[in-house]
Parts: sequence; C-alpha cells; structure tokens
Amino acid sequence: MLKLFYAPHTCALASHIALEEAGADYEIMRIDFRSNEQRKPEYLAVNPKGRVPALVMERGILTETPAILAFVAQSFPKARLAPLEDPFAFASVQAFNSYLCSTVHVAHAHRMRGHRWVDDPAAIKEMQRKVPQTVGECFALIEREMLVGPWVMGTAYTICDPYLFTLAQWLDGDGVDIARFPKVRDHHQRMAERPAVRKAIAAELG
Amino acid sequence: MLKLFYAPHTCALASHIALEEAGADYEIMRIDFRSNEQRKPEYLAVNPKGRVPALVMERGILTETPAILAFVAQSFPKARLAPLEDPFAFASVQAFNSYLCSTVHVAHAHRMRGHRWVDDPAAIKEMQRKVPQTVGECFALIEREMLVGPWVMGTAYTICDPYLFTLAQWLDGDGVDIARFPKVRDHHQRMAERPAVRKAIAAELG
Repeated sequence: MLKLFYAPHTCALASHIALEEAGADYEIMRIDFRSNEQRKPEYLAVNPKGRVPALVMERGILTETPAILAFVAQSFPKARLAPLEDPFAFASVQAFNSYLCSTVHVAHAHRMRGHRWVDDPAAIKEMQRKVPQTVGECFALIEREMLVGPWVMGTAYTICDPYLFTLAQWLDGDGVDIARFPKVRDHHQRMAERPAVRKAIAAELG
Repeated sequence: MLKLFYAPHTCALASHIALEEAGADYEIMRIDFRSNEQRKPEYLAVNPKGRVPALVMERGILTETPAILAFVAQSFPKARLAPLEDPFAFASVQAFNSYLCSTVHVAHAHRMRGHRWVDDPAAIKEMQRKVPQTVGECFALIEREMLVGPWVMGTAYTICDPYLFTLAQWLDGDGVDIARFPKVRDHHQRMAERPAVRKAIAAELG
C-alpha cells in the first residue's frame, strides 16, 4: 500500500492525480501546513525535508514530484503514463517536469515562501512584486514552445499533464491571467473534466 | 553524434561528466556567457530557454540536467550509471537529482542570478546575504540524510555523483566551507580523481 503525504493547494496534487490515473492502491495522509505540521518531529521522521509530497511504501520513502511521477509511470506501466520504452521521449517528459519543478514552481514560490531566500521584509515584498512577471514568462514559454496539445506531449496523456495542471491552478493567485495562454487554458479545462482529477481534488478538499 | 552545449562553471559539467563516464560519442559546444551568447537568436533557436546544458541529437534537443542525466544512463545501460531495472531505486536517484536542481541549485542561484526574481538592487543584496545559510542548510541535509558513501547512493556510482560534485564546486564561492561536511568533502575528492572528471574539466577550461 502506498501512502501519499500531501497538503491541500500544494504540488502534491500532481502525484495524487497520477496515482489515481494509474489505478494504484494508495491512501492519502493530510499534513496541516497552518499548524506547521510539516516541521514537527513526527513528520520530519517521515521526510527530513519537511515538505510534501512524500510517497511512503515498505521499501522506503520517495520525495520530489518529478521522481514520484516517473516512479508511478514505471510502476504501473499498463496505465501508459509515460513513453517508457523510448529514452528520448521519456527524457522529453522528464525535461518538461524538471522545468516545472526547478523554474516554474520556484518562480511561484517567491510569492509566499520568500523567507526561504531572504529575511528582510522589504526584500520579500520586492520578490512578490515580480512574481506576476516571472510566472507569466514561464507560462508564455510553455504556451509557445512546450505544450503540444491536446496534452502536453501531444496525443498521449502523460505524467506531464497533472503536473502542469497543478501549477496552473496557482496562476490566478500569482496575478497571471490564464486567458493569456489559450493552449494552457484549454489544457486546464480538459484536465478539470477528468474523473481522476475531480476525485483527487475532492479528496484533498473534503 | 551528441552535441552538448555548455558554459564553463555551470551545471552543464554534470552532463558532460556523465557522457564521458558513459563512453558516449559526443562533442561539446561552448556558449560564452560573458558576451551573453545564451540570449542570442542563434542559441535560442537551439534552446528557447536560453540556458545550458542542452543536449542536441538528430531526434531533437533535451534540456534540464536531471532529464539529461537519466537519458544518458538509459541510453548507455552498459555503463551502469543508474539502477534501471528497479523503479524504486531509480526514483531514489531521481529524487536526489531533483533536490539538487529545484532546491540546491536554486539556493545558489540567488547569489549571482538574483535578477531573475527581483529588480531592486537592495533586495538582490539581501538575497546574496542569505546564500551561505541556505546553501549550507542544503548541504547539511545532504551530509546527514542523503549521501550514503562512498558514492551518493552507496557502493554504486550513479548519475547522482557528477551532479553533486558539480554543485559542490560552487560551495567556496557561496561562502560555505566544504570542511563542515566531511562526507561531501571526501566525495568531492574521490570524484576529482576520476579520469572522466579530470577530462571533462580540462576540456571545459581548455
């Protein structure tokens, strides 16, 4: 049995959707960020990073969204969530997800997690001020160069799709109008209609 | 033939070392950051992100260090650079590399690339001020929780090793004394003696 540690409104949703799409046998464990549960000894014993997601199984714990997504795709090959037999195509999937974690998520994080990189309140405000621009530039690149359509990689639904959907959920809060990016917007609507996505969101917010 | 676009002193070194360890047939193409070559139309036609590394081959282009490293491991299985037959072990390798790209490299980037996230010069200075702390915390976690030794994953050398080596090269410039982390320091010395590492560094600086 897989256990996914998550908090609502975080990038853990991507792994949650992927597990659901894969037909995995899993349960979700909510971590309460408002009471800073991710920093308490009980959770640090699970994941010393104090972050979500964490996917726990008998063999151990996995962290980092791109790694968990690839693990789900490889562990449930029948769900065909990645082109597992083709290293170049698989690497293209991974490159997209790596861009989301190292650039897009990071640009977004400067709005609410600026304290990671500065202490000065004025500097934190300066960071927040630039978030609409930096996040907007990321999604402009995704729109122009990366999202093939109807799914990220083209006709095949992959582990890129729940991840892009999850980060696009944050656009409104980041002060970026999704309507600027018609392909991203259409992708988002297409994703929102999938039963796995509806089920995962309902479970997290329920 | 694989072409690796790189600039000296960047994370492209990790992919370069991996190609060398794999025994790949490749050539390296230097991009001059001092003349901002990565932002010129010629290079943006190769990689619209305007970053290195980029690995170019007949089928197309791959970016993002973790994706390139996994591609090299999968494309040259005889080099045994990752546990390809074991999804959990492979995901553990990927989780390590994902942490390096999304957290460690990002912490470091606030020293010289603060303009990505703020415009105000005072805020950029505030970012720089915290880099020794944030980078130090990342390496403390690596030392305590991640680096098994003698290689990152234990007895097997993997694609985690050149990536950790590459980011540890920046510690001194980031104001972090590598001697605080004996396992990281020993790993760094062990890596520096490998012929593939010596050859890649000499080629980049030559």
